[in-house]
Amino acid sequence: YQVLLSSSPRVTRGRKTREIASPFMRLSLLFLSTSRFSLAKTLAASAERQSLHLSSARLSSSSSAPKRETSRFSKKIAHKISDYLRVMADPAIEAQLAPLRAAVKEYGDLVRDLKTKKAPKLEVDKAVVELKARKRKLEDTEIALAPKEASFDRVKLEDLLKRRFFYDQSFAIYGGVTGLYDFGPMGCALKQNMLSEWRKHFILEEGMLEVDCSSLTPEPVLKASGHVDRFADWMVKDTKNGECFRADHLIKNTAEKMMADPKESPETKEQLVDVLAQIEGYDDKDMHEVITRFNMKSPVTGNDLTEPLAFNLMFPTQIGPTGDFKAFLRPETAQGIFVNFKRLLEFNQGRLPFAAAQIGLGFRNEISPRQGLIRVREFTMCEIEHFVDPSDKSFPKFAKVAGQKLNLFSACSQMDGQPAGEMAIGEAVEKGIVANETLGYYMARCQQFLLKVGVDPARTRFRQHLSNEMAHYAQDCWDAEILTSYGWIECVGNADRACYDLQQHYKATNVKLVAEKKLAEPRIVSFVQAAPNMAVIGKNHKKDAKKIQSALESLCETEVEELEKQIQNGIYKLKLEDGEVDLTKEMVNVKRGEKKVHVEEITPSVIEPSYGIGRIMYSVLEHAFRQRDTEDKRNYLSIAPLVAPIKCSILPIYANERLTPIIEAVRERMREYDLSYKVDDSAGSIGRRYARTDEIGIPFGVTVDFESEAQPWTVTVRHAESCEQIRVIVDEVGSIVHSMVIGKMAWSEAKEKYPIYESKNEEK
Amino acid sequence: YQVLLSSSPRVTRGRKTREIASPFMRLSLLFLSTSRFSLAKTLAASAERQSLHLSSARLSSSSSAPKRETSRFSKKIAHKISDYLRVMADPAIEAQLAPLRAAVKEYGDLVRDLKTKKAPKLEVDKAVVELKARKRKLEDTEIALAPKEASFDRVKLEDLLKRRFFYDQSFAIYGGVTGLYDFGPMGCALKQNMLSEWRKHFILEEGMLEVDCSSLTPEPVLKASGHVDRFADWMVKDTKNGECFRADHLIKNTAEKMMADPKESPETKEQLVDVLAQIEGYDDKDMHEVITRFNMKSPVTGNDLTEPLAFNLMFPTQIGPTGDFKAFLRPETAQGIFVNFKRLLEFNQGRLPFAAAQIGLGFRNEISPRQGLIRVREFTMCEIEHFVDPSDKSFPKFAKVAGQKLNLFSACSQMDGQPAGEMAIGEAVEKGIVANETLGYYMARCQQFLLKVGVDPARTRFRQHLSNEMAHYAQDCWDAEILTSYGWIECVGNADRACYDLQQHYKATNVKLVAEKKLAEPRIVSFVQAAPNMAVIGKNHKKDAKKIQSALESLCETEVEELEKQIQNGIYKLKLEDGEVDLTKEMVNVKRGEKKVHVEEITPSVIEPSYGIGRIMYSVLEHAFRQRDTEDKRNYLSIAPLVAPIKCSILPIYANERLTPIIEAVRERMREYDLSYKVDDSAGSIGRRYARTDEIGIPFGVTVDFESEAQPWTVTVRHAESCEQIRVIVDEVGSIVHSMVIGKMAWSEAKEKYPIYESKNEEK
Repeated sequence: YQVLLSSSPRVTRGRKTREIASPFMRLSLLFLSTSRFSLAKTLAASAERQSLHLSSARLSSSSSAPKRETSRFSKKIAHKISDYLRVMADPAIEAQLAPLRAAVKEYGDLVRDLKTKKAPKLEVDKAVVELKARKRKLEDTEIALAPKEASFDRVKLEDLLKRRFFYDQSFAIYGGVTGLYDFGPMGCALKQNMLSEWRKHFILEEGMLEVDCSSLTPEPVLKASGHVDRFADWMVKDTKNGECFRADHLIKNTAEKMMADPKESPETKEQLVDVLAQIEGYDDKDMHEVITRFNMKSPVTGNDLTEPLAFNLMFPTQIGPTGDFKAFLRPETAQGIFVNFKRLLEFNQGRLPFAAAQIGLGFRNEISPRQGLIRVREFTMCEIEHFVDPSDKSFPKFAKVAGQKLNLFSACSQMDGQPAGEMAIGEAVEKGIVANETLGYYMARCQQFLLKVGVDPARTRFRQHLSNEMAHYAQDCWDAEILTSYGWIECVGNADRACYDLQQHYKATNVKLVAEKKLAEPRIVSFVQAAPNMAVIGKNHKKDAKKIQSALESLCETEVEELEKQIQNGIYKLKLEDGEVDLTKEMVNVKRGEKKVHVEEITPSVIEPSYGIGRIMYSVLEHAFRQRDTEDKRNYLSIAPLVAPIKCSILPIYANERLTPIIEAVRERMREYDLSYKVDDSAGSIGRRYARTDEIGIPFGVTVDFESEAQPWTVTVRHAESCEQIRVIVDEVGSIVHSMVIGKMAWSEAKEKYPIYESKNEEK
Repeated sequence: YQVLLSSSPRVTRGRKTREIASPFMRLSLLFLSTSRFSLAKTLAASAERQSLHLSSARLSSSSSAPKRETSRFSKKIAHKISDYLRVMADPAIEAQLAPLRAAVKEYGDLVRDLKTKKAPKLEVDKAVVELKARKRKLEDTEIALAPKEASFDRVKLEDLLKRRFFYDQSFAIYGGVTGLYDFGPMGCALKQNMLSEWRKHFILEEGMLEVDCSSLTPEPVLKASGHVDRFADWMVKDTKNGECFRADHLIKNTAEKMMADPKESPETKEQLVDVLAQIEGYDDKDMHEVITRFNMKSPVTGNDLTEPLAFNLMFPTQIGPTGDFKAFLRPETAQGIFVNFKRLLEFNQGRLPFAAAQIGLGFRNEISPRQGLIRVREFTMCEIEHFVDPSDKSFPKFAKVAGQKLNLFSACSQMDGQPAGEMAIGEAVEKGIVANETLGYYMARCQQFLLKVGVDPARTRFRQHLSNEMAHYAQDCWDAEILTSYGWIECVGNADRACYDLQQHYKATNVKLVAEKKLAEPRIVSFVQAAPNMAVIGKNHKKDAKKIQSALESLCETEVEELEKQIQNGIYKLKLEDGEVDLTKEMVNVKRGEKKVHVEEITPSVIEPSYGIGRIMYSVLEHAFRQRDTEDKRNYLSIAPLVAPIKCSILPIYANERLTPIIEAVRERMREYDLSYKVDDSAGSIGRRYARTDEIGIPFGVTVDFESEAQPWTVTVRHAESCEQIRVIVDEVGSIVHSMVIGKMAWSEAKEKYPIYESKNEEK
């Protein structure tokens, strides 16, 4: 499946294919229009959307037919996600799904069996096609079993977010740009609060080294990381109007259409089955051959298509005036940490393990992003690189989280058609399901963070990458996925990337990116080195003599042995920075000996948690979207107080100057605790004003009424989610709201501590 | 002085020329090597460095000869800035400078006089040349009067910042990129704390609407703002090796060298005086003529030079795969606010005034940046756009700051050779020195912010732009300048930009960017409108009928009158979105009438404070750099606790496990108050460890010693700046340090409240 040119380093961080996807994977959308056809389209679109964006952006899902062209229209339809997504563990439903799961497993086992037997690739691929068909049947059934009272309406949420300016398309007055969003005051505050919580949760609490590196990145850096060569998609263009299509998507869509067409011959269809089975392995030439053989055209105009062209997904630019200093906008923040490894190690006084973290922008030139905050061209990421001794990935604080249960969706479960299941992270590490304590610790902390900012735990899971989704060097990888109306969205990647990244930069720069590890006891090591005979070298290679000396010094042992072999038969060609010189045996002596060493140099392994803040934020908003059980079915957002854009509203019961000093006193209390607040003294019933504040997720509301004036001044505090109120004295209101915001006091406790107030004006 | 192509909008936000510069302007560096020659070079380099970066990046200083090529080498020399920079108000020094100030004023007056008389431009320009010569003499004298005990050593500071990884050049292992810096843990925390203080000080306290907009910006947006056409420098290239030079700098440097050359004829020198006087008015052709006439070559190779080429200072890129969607990285964040004006006004329920703010990255492709954090290619800015009724720029809270004194350097003082002077902002507004209350309020708040984060007030001033530095539409502009070893650096621009920006975007998009203002009383206005005769139009322009109707509705009055005129003589060509139609008088009736209106539409004025965080941060570090009066002359940073990267160190007096539980208890107290801390339990004397923490600006240090173990546990708290210590009980240590960090308790108060501890081990 050569959608991406990458089967490579950084680029293949994420999945390369998604052969065996979750049973819940594609069942996430319910249409208002529930015709089978539109459902199928959405399912396809949804699957396509799941492809990740974060650390593995390019590595789209491959299991299903994306039908990007049709999904274009789905935007206008109201999307509904069923409540049942939250109750998928229902045993009655599970019973009905069991035989279908078994059918998936049967083919999962067959695929494993064929692979073990080293059966011909074509045979394996065909089994995979059947496996996928069975998975789709399972998923369709899951949707059919969904209760009818679908409760989530994405159009309403999007309308609210736009209307109250959480975020909206950038440059709209200039026609807008897809994949670029501007955050308004509400979105900006929510994002800022999430970032500040992230910083506390990870950087401060774990004592990480935070860095802030340049977005502009010179080409050689991204060449070393693999992005220049492989962070790309194959494109075909309409030869007449230049419209671009991803080549693999186009082939898949066209092939599926042809297979559904009764006019096509059985022979053609047979061939297309093979194409679909093999497409994951196709390169540009293969795809071109298929496009030509089946006479595939632009699905929009019917025009001819060009040969597949590689389209790199980084934004290119140049630094300085000469035009020959090529650079890109970074596609991830991670490389900034790797190139600073030496400085950071030194900052940490040479000691391993340590973690560095970065919060910043990433840029990806998506081809045609159309899924709101899920797929954007400019986004805020939070990345951690935890550097650790490869031979010891234990984690001192692991015991603190070992009992924490996570919803794990292991590679095994995926192959077996089984759903995700809860397991304590300690047990998962012990059983070898999760590779090591450090990775496990970050997964547990990841879950804590997601819950803190308001992600619904029932709609969160950790999905392990299948072995063929990971890069060859990666040890293990677990994505935190969140269920939204776009399906299961990968929001965080947690990967053990071994020592790949540091080694790549070492190879490119010849700067050693290693740590010294003290040996338990000194070791005697034999060494072999190439000692230059400077007199002879000086005579023969006058001006290069110094360079030759240092080049010889930096040869590794194998190279010295190679030199020894070659030089005995004549000459050895020594590489210099700017060329090559011929050395003869008169110029070099190979010396052998032994020495006592106390330390060894190791290239640290890297555990990398990588967070896509925009995606998490969108998930938080979807999970916070609610409807009142009242007649008018008002919508509101129940955002976690900790990250809510505004913590408290201040409302005079009606406009009257007598209340002004009390309002001022309340403001003062809010400022004292750094609580953001919004005064709404506009006309309109108190109920209408409550509704306006509920809509933007203000968790608490202070109302100043005429009872407030009695000494000591009092106000009511309203809990937006429950619409309940208590009465408190003004001097305490700041500290009470603050305690509830930071989670020191729950609303239920507040209700016990302070008198309940039954509003006469409430909620109209 | 056509260095920049811009004499334009946004682009001329800052100064265009700096004809009459500060008397302090160029005296800011003292070399370790104090030969007159190297001084002169540095002065030139320093002047060149002062050119600003922030809102007026392109508008470099023009008064002195930059000698960029020589300044290249100055990096290696140790720079010193004299203490006297802090005591420039010394009356004895001022007395000696008085006659020189008078000499400047004489020519300042002459220039004004010549301008009033509308004397020939050449005559004015020659007077300006003399004026500048006198200013330089004044400045040289100021330097000569500086005390010898120069105390600031930039090389030492830079070494510290690099060694302790505050920041360092990006991609150093790849050879580095000039103008790009990575912030390490210390720099990152300092910057983050400054940003979070900025957010509190402005956004929260003033109730601003924060936004977070895309960095990627489509070309049309920056075309409208003026950046595409005018945010550029004229460049010449070495015809053989392609090396680039700023054309104006090259001419100046070459001309000055020739004028100093005894072999050049007096006639040539006479001509060169004219060139230098006029260069500010030169366009590319003029500069090419001069380069050709004087046979100017590359100063590096002696090769020929190309004609001047415009080099735009924005980083170009493309969005999407087709390659025809041109975009740039934003050179400032302001445009993101302007294009969101409608949404923001709506968010503010249609009411003026309101302020929007943005914290984010800006990008400028500087030609060859060489001044550390002062001139960089990627930087964090904080910008505010305060939208206000142009006819009423009063500010409700102005009374709160009216008594606050600022160091004002008005345009008048600059022309008169006078220094900056203190004045209450209320008085300055009343006297018309500062244009209005809103601008004055932001200047006062700006000073408060700078002082809060640790800028030395004695090295801060507000410099007013001279009328010829401002864009034609701007009302007034005051830069907050901070004195550093690079000279007076513009760190904040405070400008009243009138309604220019909104109007530019309106012109480009035809989207009205206006607010409705309620009239004091309703007004009768006459109107004229084009009423379509739909029957006739429908018959003639079937499918376009709807479009014609709406196009006619959106004609403005002048256009309707134009239509009326043309249609009587035959046809009127009406523009539609996608073409043109011919209308005859049968199709349209022009109607006139009167109507009562209650509101009028106004384009708000914009007051724009724009902060360059990197520059402020560098200034803070320079002002915080100190040397102990001890024998070893240890350096340390005295950073304001509020923004210090780490608030507190925790040091066991020596490594002993018995102290561990107490250390853990102290950590717990720190966490409770969200105080960042650093435990240093490494070997080494306590004095050495104090020195290490002092060096990175940790303001407070908790020492756990053997006295700590007595019940209740106690520790000492050390004030890094004074090296004094007090003894406190562990349970209170978090709250005590917290109070001092947020400024609720000064060290002097703490010393009165808690017992002083005389250390026996201190400072060794």
